[in-house]
Amino acid sequence: MTRRAATEQAVRARRTVEDLLRRVRHRLASFLAAERAHCAEVHEHAVVAVDALADLAAGGPLLRPAFCLTGYLAAGGDPEEAGIVDAAAALELLHLSTLVHGDVLDGSRTRRGKPAVHALHSTLHRTRGWHGESRRFGEGVAVVAGDLALVYSDELMAGAPRGARTEWRRLRPEAVLGPYLDLAAAAEFSAAPDLPRLTALLTSGRRAARRPLARGASAAGRPDLAGALAPYGEAVGEASRPRDDLLDALGDPAHTGATAGPDFPRHKVTLLLGRAMQRDSRLRDLITEPGHTPDEIRARLLETGVTADAEQRIAHLVDQGCAVLADAPLPPQWRARLTDMALRAAYRDK
Amino acid sequence: MTRRAATEQAVRARRTVEDLLRRVRHRLASFLAAERAHCAEVHEHAVVAVDALADLAAGGPLLRPAFCLTGYLAAGGDPEEAGIVDAAAALELLHLSTLVHGDVLDGSRTRRGKPAVHALHSTLHRTRGWHGESRRFGEGVAVVAGDLALVYSDELMAGAPRGARTEWRRLRPEAVLGPYLDLAAAAEFSAAPDLPRLTALLTSGRRAARRPLARGASAAGRPDLAGALAPYGEAVGEASRPRDDLLDALGDPAHTGATAGPDFPRHKVTLLLGRAMQRDSRLRDLITEPGHTPDEIRARLLETGVTADAEQRIAHLVDQGCAVLADAPLPPQWRARLTDMALRAAYRDK
Repeated sequence: MTRRAATEQAVRARRTVEDLLRRVRHRLASFLAAERAHCAEVHEHAVVAVDALADLAAGGPLLRPAFCLTGYLAAGGDPEEAGIVDAAAALELLHLSTLVHGDVLDGSRTRRGKPAVHALHSTLHRTRGWHGESRRFGEGVAVVAGDLALVYSDELMAGAPRGARTEWRRLRPEAVLGPYLDLAAAAEFSAAPDLPRLTALLTSGRRAARRPLARGASAAGRPDLAGALAPYGEAVGEASRPRDDLLDALGDPAHTGATAGPDFPRHKVTLLLGRAMQRDSRLRDLITEPGHTPDEIRARLLETGVTADAEQRIAHLVDQGCAVLADAPLPPQWRARLTDMALRAAYRDK
Repeated sequence: MTRRAATEQAVRARRTVEDLLRRVRHRLASFLAAERAHCAEVHEHAVVAVDALADLAAGGPLLRPAFCLTGYLAAGGDPEEAGIVDAAAALELLHLSTLVHGDVLDGSRTRRGKPAVHALHSTLHRTRGWHGESRRFGEGVAVVAGDLALVYSDELMAGAPRGARTEWRRLRPEAVLGPYLDLAAAAEFSAAPDLPRLTALLTSGRRAARRPLARGASAAGRPDLAGALAPYGEAVGEASRPRDDLLDALGDPAHTGATAGPDFPRHKVTLLLGRAMQRDSRLRDLITEPGHTPDEIRARLLETGVTADAEQRIAHLVDQGCAVLADAPLPPQWRARLTDMALRAAYRDK
């Protein structure tokens, strides 16, 4: 094949994924609008939770659907098959459920640059002068919104290709348990890295890339390719977590859209922080004792050298993942696409 | 048929339901044990949520599965069909999810005579001297446990008869939204009875009896019978809610297993309380102003006469439900069974 023809194929591959992602975004919006209408028939109050989901769904980067669709197309799946759009949209709703509930679990106040669902509804409760405790109300809305997202994700799976269902079953309990392991790690606040590393695997490694890819490939009737791509997905997903940790600890909150500053006050133990605490035992005290500013903690964390190590680890994981692609039975344009996605996921700045 | 033969048929019907309920209990226990083993492979911490569910599942009265199985058998369903056990167990897991999350939403400290999931794990967090906020940890465990129950309920539905799936879809969003409407009613704390009445319908009326019955009948291939039994299920379910309200406001907590005393401090607006506040405007102040004891509030509530009205309403609903049975195309032993179930649900003492 000429170089030009190869480039054209690569461009077509990217455009096909982008077209399908637009359809996923549209499907999510129209599905949630229809569910909103059902809720409104029940009672005007009943729309609050579905509205919260629609807001969140509108702004998402659709990382998981993108991996699912790429796995599907790389495996030769038909882009006109409506079921694959539903399968990808279901993944995103499951993800939204874990985001909304996860923000309650670790008390994060912001999400994607806006107030988290529970934070927004606590504020509304307060400003309306409603009865009862504002925190309970806000967190209650978030619990129900996350539950609805879980139910709806399954609703969308009804229209998905049969091959996608097996991966769906493996993926769901992992998705739901991930935030709990974060919570347990924060509660124990141990520097031992086993729990954070496992959480990284469950919440990013398998969930963000490996399982979605496998679902896509299986939906196209190619479980063999799902197996061949698993080490790639695991590596790319695993690289995503240290990037999250680095952005959380060092990124500019105005740009990342996360809670201003790192999660030190809530003792959230990222793999990065766990490693830093192992190297510098004073760091643990700085976090648990009152009176130390995030800047002070951050400076100490940088001195341990863990951030350079994390960058090295990310680079290693990306290399490892892309090496897998070289041996996978893939058309070249999809190898190029997956390489590009690995780099984007690992080197994003928000 | 002789009277004796009829009695024998009625006894057989009851025993068949009881046998199937035992199988449901066993299925729940073995399913959760298998899921626990999966979780334990992930990490020792990951079993906490599934253990919480297993504890709760062991003690339940299985009201929803009982209605589902009765609907199924009354419609001529085969008691040996394994799928109906899964369908009934799925209903119970969905119910457990709404109980665990509902207790977080309204801050209930006890459930079935034991500490609620979130309350237990807040206490454990505190006694172990873990880091972070005990309340957040306990509520986090409960959120994840409820999520798992939702995921597992759907997992069990995979083995259910096809006919049961349509009712499942209608039932799930209602089940999830019910507790939110309770929360909204408490926040507005209005005496207008529309929101509490709707919640009563959603959380008890449709969920406890009508939808389970319909699922059972549909699973046996008799959606026509599902339709004929709908007004019975709606009436019996609706009668269940004022009974809950009465037990909550007047029952002996040592016997009912609920939080000691009524839900006045959290401003939970039951239909009973809403009606009482409409009759006696001073009651609202007694609840919102500090310094009034539950006994004082309870006495004032009794003076309004709403409890006698509630008993009358229950009796009317039971009559109405049983009248429906007389015209339904049902074998006589199942008419007797459903009459018995209506009376037990409406006149239970806990």
